[in-house]
Formats: sequence, C-alpha cells, structure tokens
Amino acid sequence: MKIALAQLNYHIGNFEGNLHKMLRAIEEARRQGADLICFGELAVCGYPPRDFLEFDDFIQRCQASVQALREVSGGIGIVVGAPTRNPVVEGKDLYNSAYFLYEGEVIGVQHKALLPTYDIFDEYRYFEPASAFRPVAFKGYKIALTICEDIWNVGNDNPLYTICPLDEMRPYQPDLILNLSASPFHYGQASERLRIIRANVERYGIPMFYVNHVGAQTDLIFDGGSVVMSPNGQVFDEMPYFKETLRTYSLEEVLRGGRQCQQSKEKIPLIHDALILGIRDYFDKLRFSKAILGLSGGIDSAVTCTLAVEALGAENVRGLLMPGPFSSEHSLTDARQLAERLGISYDIVPISGVYEAFLHALEPLFAHQPFNITEENIQARIRGTLLMAMSNKFGHILLNTSNKSEMAVGYGTLYGDMCGGLAVLGDVYKTEVYALANYLNTLPIGRYSQRGVIPENSILKPPSAELRPNQKDSDNLPEYDVLDPLLFHYIEGRRGPRELVQMGFDEALVARVLRMVNTNEFKREQAAPVLRVSPKSFGMGRRMPIVGKYLS
Amino acid sequence: MKIALAQLNYHIGNFEGNLHKMLRAIEEARRQGADLICFGELAVCGYPPRDFLEFDDFIQRCQASVQALREVSGGIGIVVGAPTRNPVVEGKDLYNSAYFLYEGEVIGVQHKALLPTYDIFDEYRYFEPASAFRPVAFKGYKIALTICEDIWNVGNDNPLYTICPLDEMRPYQPDLILNLSASPFHYGQASERLRIIRANVERYGIPMFYVNHVGAQTDLIFDGGSVVMSPNGQVFDEMPYFKETLRTYSLEEVLRGGRQCQQSKEKIPLIHDALILGIRDYFDKLRFSKAILGLSGGIDSAVTCTLAVEALGAENVRGLLMPGPFSSEHSLTDARQLAERLGISYDIVPISGVYEAFLHALEPLFAHQPFNITEENIQARIRGTLLMAMSNKFGHILLNTSNKSEMAVGYGTLYGDMCGGLAVLGDVYKTEVYALANYLNTLPIGRYSQRGVIPENSILKPPSAELRPNQKDSDNLPEYDVLDPLLFHYIEGRRGPRELVQMGFDEALVARVLRMVNTNEFKREQAAPVLRVSPKSFGMGRRMPIVGKYLS
Repeated sequence: MKIALAQLNYHIGNFEGNLHKMLRAIEEARRQGADLICFGELAVCGYPPRDFLEFDDFIQRCQASVQALREVSGGIGIVVGAPTRNPVVEGKDLYNSAYFLYEGEVIGVQHKALLPTYDIFDEYRYFEPASAFRPVAFKGYKIALTICEDIWNVGNDNPLYTICPLDEMRPYQPDLILNLSASPFHYGQASERLRIIRANVERYGIPMFYVNHVGAQTDLIFDGGSVVMSPNGQVFDEMPYFKETLRTYSLEEVLRGGRQCQQSKEKIPLIHDALILGIRDYFDKLRFSKAILGLSGGIDSAVTCTLAVEALGAENVRGLLMPGPFSSEHSLTDARQLAERLGISYDIVPISGVYEAFLHALEPLFAHQPFNITEENIQARIRGTLLMAMSNKFGHILLNTSNKSEMAVGYGTLYGDMCGGLAVLGDVYKTEVYALANYLNTLPIGRYSQRGVIPENSILKPPSAELRPNQKDSDNLPEYDVLDPLLFHYIEGRRGPRELVQMGFDEALVARVLRMVNTNEFKREQAAPVLRVSPKSFGMGRRMPIVGKYLS
Repeated sequence: MKIALAQLNYHIGNFEGNLHKMLRAIEEARRQGADLICFGELAVCGYPPRDFLEFDDFIQRCQASVQALREVSGGIGIVVGAPTRNPVVEGKDLYNSAYFLYEGEVIGVQHKALLPTYDIFDEYRYFEPASAFRPVAFKGYKIALTICEDIWNVGNDNPLYTICPLDEMRPYQPDLILNLSASPFHYGQASERLRIIRANVERYGIPMFYVNHVGAQTDLIFDGGSVVMSPNGQVFDEMPYFKETLRTYSLEEVLRGGRQCQQSKEKIPLIHDALILGIRDYFDKLRFSKAILGLSGGIDSAVTCTLAVEALGAENVRGLLMPGPFSSEHSLTDARQLAERLGISYDIVPISGVYEAFLHALEPLFAHQPFNITEENIQARIRGTLLMAMSNKFGHILLNTSNKSEMAVGYGTLYGDMCGGLAVLGDVYKTEVYALANYLNTLPIGRYSQRGVIPENSILKPPSAELRPNQKDSDNLPEYDVLDPLLFHYIEGRRGPRELVQMGFDEALVARVLRMVNTNEFKREQAAPVLRVSPKSFGMGRRMPIVGKYLS
C-alpha cells in the first residue's frame, strides 16, 4: 500500500483555497500511485479557527468541504481533519475529527480524545473529547487514526489525560498509526515530536505516519517536519521544515525500515527559518506584499529588516530613517549601510521639526516641567506616526522590531516603537537577536552576495534608544546577558521569586525585574501579535491579569 | 444559626489586601453574631488569577492565606474559595476549592466540578473537576458547598456538563446550599442568576445562600447582588449591586420565608453603575487617581467624561480639547460647555501646528498624493500623542472613548483615538451610548446640580470624526440604528450571513458589515481592555483569528 502525506499550508476560513490545495494534492498523489492521502488536523478550515467554530455557517462550510473531498475519493482513500457536530445533546457541540473517505463514502470517523487546553491551546473551549476508538479497515490494513495530542499520552504517562487512545485501539491490533497534527513550532518542538513518535512506535510495534501543517497563522508558525517512522523506531522520513511537501511512501518499505533520516535541529537556524515563514505568510494571507519599518542603526531593526528582505524580497521592503535630536551620527550611517547592502529603498525623515511642534503645542501645559520620559515617548510616537502614515499612504504593513527582552520589561513606547502589524522578534530575547544577527551574517542575502550584511557596528555598539543625551539601555536595565536568563526562567520556566534566588539570581534584581514584567502587562495587552518561536511566547499562550498586585 | 455573606471587592494577587479585608469582615460578622461567614470563589487571590495559577509561589501564597483564616476560625465557621493542589498525579495540577474552616481546623473541602471554559472563562486550562461530593456537617446542619457554575446544571439540564453536584449530594439530605461565586456582570446576568438560584431551590426544597464578588478586575466587572433565597423560591434578600456588603441572616428566618426582595434590573442604569465601578477600580487597583481624555464635543467623549467624573470626582478628571483643521465650531463650544458643567479642568491644544509639521516632514515622500485616510489618521495620532504626553508628564491614565459599534467595524485610528488604558464604552453600542447620555441627563452630577449635564447639541448633532471637510459617520457607515442590531446579532448572537439575511437584513449590507468586522480584528487585537457589560464583549471572551479569510 502506498500512503501519501500532504504537508500543506492552510489558511484559516479560506475554504475555497484550502479545498483547491487539497484537490491538487490528491491529483498529485494519484500520479504518485498513492492508495491513500492524509491531510492535517482541521485541514478544511485551517488551525486554529478559534471562535469561528461557534458559527453554524462556519461548520456548514467545513462540512461542505468534506463533502467535496468525498466526491473525489474514487480509487483513493482520503483522510482529512474537520470539525463535526456532536449529535448528542450532552457535552460540547463539536468534535475535532478525522474523516476517512473512500469510493464516495465516509468509511470511518475518529474524534480527537486529548484536547490540549493550556498555553496557546483552547480546545476544550469548543470540543467534546472522543469516547470511542476503533481502527478503520482499508485495503486489508487496520489503520489507527489519531489527531495531534492523541499520541502525546503514551500509555497514560502524561498526567494531563486519563485516556490513551492507542491503548484503547490496541485490542483491534492495528497495523499502522496515522496522526493528523496541527502542531505549532517552537525551537524545541521537532526533537520533542520525534521523541513522542518513537515512544508510540516502540510501545505498539507498528509504524506511524505523522502529518503536520506548515505555514503561519498570524502568531503561530507550523513547521511541517511530518514524520514516517518504521516499527524499529528509525525515522524513515522527516519532511522538510517550513515547506509544503507531498510525498508518497510504500508501507512495505516503511515496515522493512533500514532508512534513517536526519535534519538539523539547531536552534538559531530554526528560529531564522520560522520567522521568515511567519513574515511571508502574514503578508500573503492578508494579501499584502510591501513592508515598511524604521531603521535606527540598531541591531533589532537590522535583523528585522534583513529577515523581511529574505521573506518578501528587497523590492518589497522600505526603510525609514528618522533621526531625532539625540540620534548619534552612527545611527544614520549604520542604518544606511544596511539598507544599501540589502538593496532596499529607504528615506530619511528627520523628526526634529515635528518634535519642536509638539513641544511648542504642549509648552503652555508643561510650563517648567523638566525633560523626562514624556519627551522620550513623544519622539518614539512621532516615529510611529510617520511609519503608519507611510503604511496608510502606500499600503505597507509596518513591521514591529521590539524584542522579547524589551517587551518583557516594558522597555518600549506604547503607540511608538511598539507600533506595527506584526512583532517579528517579540519572542526572541536580545541575546538571541545577536545570535540571529551573527547567523544572518554567515548567509548571502539579497543582492549582497558577500557574507556580513548586518553592519558590524550595529552588532558591537552598546544598545541605546537614543531618546535623550548619551542614553544606554544599561542605564535602566541590567545587562542583557544577566537579564535574559532571569526572564527565561520566569517566563518560560515559571519560577517564582524564591526559586530564582535559589538558582543564584540576586534577590533585589529578581524583585525589580519581576516587578517590571508584571507591571507592564498593560503594554503587552496592546502589543502587535508576536511570531511565536519559543515554548512560552507573549500573546494567547500567556494570559495574565493587567490589574493585579502580584510581584508588582 | 446565623450566616454572614461577605460580598467583597478583591484584588488579584493582592494577598495581604484580600486577607486584611476578610479579617475585618470576620470581626464584623462576629459582632453581628454570625456562626458562619462565607466569602467568594477564589477569594484569597481574586478572580480570575489566570496564568498566575501556574506559579508554585502563587499557590503557596494562596495556601498561606487559608492558613491565616484557619487560625482565626475559633468560634466562627469560615467558608472561603482558594486553589488547592491536586494530590493525584493524573489530571490538572489544581482544584478550584471551597474550604470550610472552624475551630482552627479544616472541617471540609469541596472542589468545583463544573469548570466554565467558554467566553471569558478558561477554567479547564487550570483546574481538575471534582469527582467527590459531600455536604459539610456544621452545628447540626448539613451544608452543601458549591462553587459558582456548580449550580448552573440543574438536574443535568445544561448540555455542557454531565454532572450535577447537588444531585450527587442529594442522598445526604443537605439542609442548605452555600454557593461561592465569582460571576461577572453583564446587563442580563442578575435576572439569569435569580432564575438559576430559584430552579435549584425549587428542585431541592432547601434555601440557598449565594455570595458573589463585587468590583472590577480590568475588563471584568463583578456586580455583587448576592442572594439569599427561601425554600419557597422567594428572594429573602438580594444584596446591593456594585457595593461591598456584609449581612448576617438567621437561617431560621430564611427557612420561614415571607420576605420578598426586589432590585431594579433596568439595562441602562445597570450598565451605568457597572461602568462607574469599572473605571473606579481600574484606577484604585493600579493606584492611580487622575484621568485624562480628549473632548471632541461628540457624544462618546461626553459620556465617557461624565462617567469618569462620577467615578473619580471632577477634581481628578482633565479634558483636552484639540481642535484640528476640520473641527467645527460647535466641537469646541460643546466640549467646553460639558467641561464647565462638570467642573473639570480642561485645556485647549490646537493640533494644526503639529499637523503642518507632519505634512511638511512627509512632503518629500508623499509628493503629489491626494489627501486621504492617511491625513485623517495623522490628526487622530497627533491627538493620541498629546494625550499620552499629558498622561506621561502628570501621571494621568488616558481613558479611551471608542464605542462598540466603532470597534466592531474598525471605524477608529489605531494609535490615535484607539489609545488609552481602558476603553470605557468599548462594549456599549452607539445607540446605547445615546441611551446612556439621556440617562445621565436625568441625574445631578458633580457640581452641576441641574439635570442635563451633557449638552443637547452633543446628543442631537450627527456623529462625525471631523477629520476631513464636512465628514459624517454616515458617509462610511450605515446609520447606527441599522448597524447596531446587525452587529448585535452577529457578535452577541453569532448568526451567520444566511441567518442574518433571513432575519431581514439586506444581503449586501450584511456582507459589507461582516467583512468590516472580520478584517478589523487586527485593530481590536491592539485595543485597550474593554469594560465588559454585555454577554459578548471584545477581548478575552471573543477570540478570533487575525489572519483569516472568512466573511472577509
């Protein structure tokens, strides 16, 4: 038997587009001689559909897509994820299901049993868990259908769940496992995924065909990396990361094994590739092509701009250099050097005239108040307004350049440098931004065929917002190589103050930094969506009260 | 037996503050001769604590508060909500529990069984549902402890749940029901609450003591309205809405019945009172006292400002009048009239100088592009920047004046009039804003002892953003009395396009409006938190994809 896995880039709610893509994949699978083709979890509507699932019309359209696929299932089995209505009054209204279609019929439906309801996931908000488990018989094989999380409770070792769907199917002696996933990327996910697939394959002694989504849905990036594993635990194939791919496998060859695949899982290159896909899909799926961003000569805007050029092409990226009263000379020269190396168009718009006009307008009210954060924020907000004006006038999307360290401690101006449609580096700590810059400097990018596109000076100079004379980030913040590990253990590790002090962090610093993180929730509430690359990103995956008084 | 209900205003994560408040309530209850005092759901930490629950330190502090209450339980029973650790490896790490403390001991713990996971609620994200149910024996009575949602599945009539906790306790023949709630306000909630309490009381034939939180936690407003119901279904008492209250009841009198309470549940006055508490608590709990807002002479800013004066006092509200090149004469006169009637301080800061400076700075880039939405947005963003400058310089919080109709269709400028710490009217449709204005004009407010504080002209003139010559909202939007019902059925009612057309809405209008709502999700993503007063508010209760292509 030949099984095709279709690792596709879906678009939430784009029923025509998703269906068209699947129909083309079915044709291609037929050409490759496949008996069966397998799509991802909730493929008909894209993942995560969120509260669209509460609209009857949305569910009807999902069902219409399943119908359309059923009609083309002559001679080829089609396995596809879709929401289905729960016919029983009791329980949530929907199931998250896998349909098995063949010869114009539905020959099996398996609902998802393990519904992730943590971090970015809200599945129990919508879905009733499956209570019945049975493999589908197809061409002499018994196929155990599972959906994403269903395989993440190997023999009930995961304390979150009390059911192990594959244990439930074991009495039927399935011959292989199909898993339909929509498993979002973070830099450790590909290794985790192989570990869990191997644990299942070893437990049941049968091969697994695991198909993932690829592509970004706003903040969530799906990395693909679909897996075929032989019963001996060898990776028969791992599909490319971040690329749509369709491949057909001979079940017999997979059973035989003897092939072992490897793909690099290095953190910084993975993050790099994820961010590029994240940018590209944000633009493609919103049907925009052009980006604009502010270039300060600093490392964050340099890295964001370089990634944007890789994602969208130099011709679609425009830089704005907006020197202010406290800008250093190198801020202009470094930014200009970057723009020229990347081959993007850029303009220089000094902010001083507008800044003076603001000060003049406010003079009667400010009277003799000394210069403080207010005037710093005015400069940042003028830049935000100029960038948004370009965005409005010419149809660019503004890319936000804030990094995770800044977002964590609130070192940024709301409605100023926090403006933007998408926060490219919002899940990348400052120290990782440097690592990304150094990695980018090993690549030939755009028209700059040499290595080292990001000016050395942007990497070497001490970070500064340049909003008052001789300002440095380190005036207000600890050095990033101290700050970032502390933030990591608080945000990703969810350690409390006592645990952090026990780990060796200075007690006063812990109190100060945690306070900064917690009191700046109001800024993050209004931040641009953040491309998620870590296991704990700002956004839907981290839900914090704004008004509160804990560690604040 | 005498039972005290403590309807208190908690503060999320403020363990010292919450404990102090409860200790004072216990003293008062003792003075009133109470045998038992009952606090709300998760009272020790406030509700909703969200992902703070994932911090071990946070749970430890909750437990420390329970310990402290246990120590003062000599001679008085104390029932209080707190998270508890699930000792079993399987399942979620926590329970949402009610502790029954007496004579220094824990004499009962009942976990919550029905975990709302819809709209604003995420309880299954954190909690394991209870599986054991048993009344607590206290002074010769068997008391059925329940937590909020636990009573919302009367005899399993609610399809969301398969367990009815009170049915489970029925064999033990409890004498009364205690319910610890944290039930957020919307304008229909108080009636719903009485209906569900009555259904329980009638089913079990025993009285219910229902204690709710009062106070706002950012977007969520808890209205109090705690209820004591006699076995005959009569409301023995309903505590005031939006006010902290402690009252002690004789169980014998409640059992006897014969008292019937009524409080008005009129929609607009309830919304009015809710918004005032929402504003007040946002400021109090963030330890701010002063508000600033832009006064345009229009109805939204007039209503927001009036509510702010009621909530914070005229001396704490400052208005900024920022006439621009397209402002009408009446925009200044109407705004000034309002400010003077309210007795707030206000300043006039014309934006034209800054506007000209922006146009000048952008001239080389804009060249011969015609005036369009770009220049409109620049004006709005100048105003946002001026307001934020005042906020930064003098420590005001900026109040946002956007209404729900605007937020729904994206009729507002991101980083412009969408700025602010709190969107006071973000869950109030434009037509309801008018109703609020008319209601406010029946009240004596601030130093304005006459009725009619909001200038008639602000109510009567056609709404306009005044960002280009002779602009009217109706140039871009349908009339609000058509738009609002359509939005209501789409947002609150979750009707799809076909259903809306069947209801009689014009097909082209439906397509146009739904498209506006769906394509403006990116703006709402960066909007200020919205005070929730309806059953479906923008924010955590409505989770929509940004990048999508459904009805867009």
